[in-house]
Amino acid sequence: MSIITLTTDYGLKDHFVGSLKGKILSEIPEAKIIDISHDIDPFNTAEASYIIGASYLSFPKGTVHLIGVDIELNKENQHIAMQWNDHYFICADNGILSMLTQKIVPQKIVEINIHDRFPADYTDLDVFIQVACHIAKGGLLNVIGKEITEIKEINELQAVVSNDGNSLKGYVIYIDHFGNVVTNISKRQFLEVAKGRSYEIVMNPKSIKTILPNYSAIATSDKYPIKTYEGEKLAIFNEAGFLEIAIFRSNPSKVGSANSLLGLNYRDVITIQFF
Amino acid sequence: MSIITLTTDYGLKDHFVGSLKGKILSEIPEAKIIDISHDIDPFNTAEASYIIGASYLSFPKGTVHLIGVDIELNKENQHIAMQWNDHYFICADNGILSMLTQKIVPQKIVEINIHDRFPADYTDLDVFIQVACHIAKGGLLNVIGKEITEIKEINELQAVVSNDGNSLKGYVIYIDHFGNVVTNISKRQFLEVAKGRSYEIVMNPKSIKTILPNYSAIATSDKYPIKTYEGEKLAIFNEAGFLEIAIFRSNPSKVGSANSLLGLNYRDVITIQFF
Amino acid sequence: MSIITLTTDYGLKDHFVGSLKGKILSEIPEAKIIDISHDIDPFNTAEASYIIGASYLSFPKGTVHLIGVDIELNKENQHIAMQWNDHYFICADNGILSMLTQKIVPQKIVEINIHDRFPADYTDLDVFIQVACHIAKGGLLNVIGKEITEIKEINELQAVVSNDGNSLKGYVIYIDHFGNVVTNISKRQFLEVAKGRSYEIVMNPKSIKTILPNYSAIATSDKYPIKTYEGEKLAIFNEAGFLEIAIFRSNPSKVGSANSLLGLNYRDVITIQFF
Repeated sequence: MSIITLTTDYGLKDHFVGSLKGKILSEIPEAKIIDISHDIDPFNTAEASYIIGASYLSFPKGTVHLIGVDIELNKENQHIAMQWNDHYFICADNGILSMLTQKIVPQKIVEINIHDRFPADYTDLDVFIQVACHIAKGGLLNVIGKEITEIKEINELQAVVSNDGNSLKGYVIYIDHFGNVVTNISKRQFLEVAKGRSYEIVMNPKSIKTILPNYSAIATSDKYPIKTYEGEKLAIFNEAGFLEIAIFRSNPSKVGSANSLLGLNYRDVITIQFF
Repeated sequence: MSIITLTTDYGLKDHFVGSLKGKILSEIPEAKIIDISHDIDPFNTAEASYIIGASYLSFPKGTVHLIGVDIELNKENQHIAMQWNDHYFICADNGILSMLTQKIVPQKIVEINIHDRFPADYTDLDVFIQVACHIAKGGLLNVIGKEITEIKEINELQAVVSNDGNSLKGYVIYIDHFGNVVTNISKRQFLEVAKGRSYEIVMNPKSIKTILPNYSAIATSDKYPIKTYEGEKLAIFNEAGFLEIAIFRSNPSKVGSANSLLGLNYRDVITIQFF
Repeated sequence: MSIITLTTDYGLKDHFVGSLKGKILSEIPEAKIIDISHDIDPFNTAEASYIIGASYLSFPKGTVHLIGVDIELNKENQHIAMQWNDHYFICADNGILSMLTQKIVPQKIVEINIHDRFPADYTDLDVFIQVACHIAKGGLLNVIGKEITEIKEINELQAVVSNDGNSLKGYVIYIDHFGNVVTNISKRQFLEVAKGRSYEIVMNPKSIKTILPNYSAIATSDKYPIKTYEGEKLAIFNEAGFLEIAIFRSNPSKVGSANSLLGLNYRDVITIQFF
């Protein structure tokens, strides 16, 4: 039996997540259900896209990822299930999966078409649950939908190289719990464009000249205790492979964060200038 | 072995919920424990009542629901366990279960009377854990308490029909994660009073003339993209069967919510006027 | 297979906790993983120390406690695993465990030294996960580190007796979900110093003359309903064995809390004066 992960914007105050799990367990009593996040910013498909892309590989192959963000079925919003990189994803066709499919071609995508097999009071989430349980039990995608080849893209998730190839312009796509800001500049794209040149990360009015291998690498001298460096800005490629601007030992309510200290917000521009 | 669900006002920052689970697992190593909510407003039994009523049916029959809200044993607050609609509920007799028992007669209620069988440092929650594990293992209610027939009621959870039968007056009983407000007007009561008449939902200074079958039904024209309707007010009967006033694609910090845009707060009056 | 508990400052919005669980389940498909808290104040090792000390005993012997707070390996911050009171703890040597080892001598402590056995892109957390899974499967500590006998202490966690033995001075070390404040004065230390004398808890400008056995004990008269006492200040020894200053039926946003009503904050002084 596969693991089922949950990524939603339902929050944890209401009963929605508990009910969702209860329904899965009613179908599969031995189901293994893991929360990825239920605090996706409401209806923010770009944020859901980043979170699912950053986390799915931590799970075993065959895991079923149910994504409950902006799922109400309507003329613009079909339901899809995708097999990709040996994982399964169930969501609305609202661009959430485009961050994944930019990198690797999907093995199979279906548009879910079994809504009329269920009772009239079944919600869109109920359909997702049935599909997730079907796949977790080893069921085929073709049984629950008709194959399609294209899904919607979120284009804002692309960093852009300048015409002269001397700069790479990205955006803040996520601000994490520590107030560290994540950009859409991936390590792979950086290396491709950099070709070994020196560089500077420009984010007005400040800049950073070095991308560190890890946070503690900011302590360049053994003379001073680590605490001395608290509050300094730094850049790393995070575990998800994206450029992150951080504050060393960031604590939004005490030390401050990249978000608060550097004034970096969602969708702000970060440019890497090469020399 | 039955599922044990948890609904508390303990929050997730402290260790309380983790300790609670550790104690259950110490009794039943293979226990399946599901969180419904730990963010019930502190000591708010009406909110706990709504959440448990809205979610219990998502779980299989025989599930044991432990409700940790206002449970300290004192002269006014006895501990009870109830079998109802083939589910089990453990809580203090503080009105939390009255929302359920208004609809269906309980199969059995006992006042828990085994407190003196435990060590002196056992807390009220420790007793609940023992009772929950006893029932989850298939134990009988009579073993842990003496049968009673009446429990306390929370009367504020009743919507009222006017004397002339031309209006139905309810209150906001819950504000969810999206800022949508839930009233105590149930679909069943609405249909009984409406008898097919036209109606208007009045909430000063605004009103709504139609209860939609789902959120997306607000998009009445195919000419405009769904996004056009973002921020518009609407009414539906939610999954729990209660009238909900919502904002389409509500996001409290961006689009706004029924709570922020319409000024609707906990205990505010919502009236349905029939014509 | 042992339970693995998680205590981190990662928050629940990001994918970090989900990824952590996915990696554990990739190693041990049948792992039982329990969250203690993921809302430790960022990099606050004293808070982590209190939470782990207050909760570990709720779990069965042999449980593995993974503590992800301030874990980046650097010259000042080694990784350790400790067997203590028949439980296992994995964390950085940053003082988190000193609250435990003040009370009982550890059975074994090792400095983890297997970092070079893993791929270059392994994070510090990945190493913790490998160690946790190794121990949960029954593996020995000596296999993953070299034995050490001393760990770092957090000294601020000690309450102090005055020279004349007539007062005990402690500090607020934790503020819980209800706004109740927990001090570092333990019941054991209180009893040792009190030697049966009367006392007064002084916290400027107020004081409390009695430590109650439980919250409801504030209702000293049967004449008045329990609700009458809502909002009154009180002191108890909490489940973790520490002096706690609380507000009866505390609700930070309505009734108020010890934090808001009495102005008690993290690190504020609480003195017990004996007569």
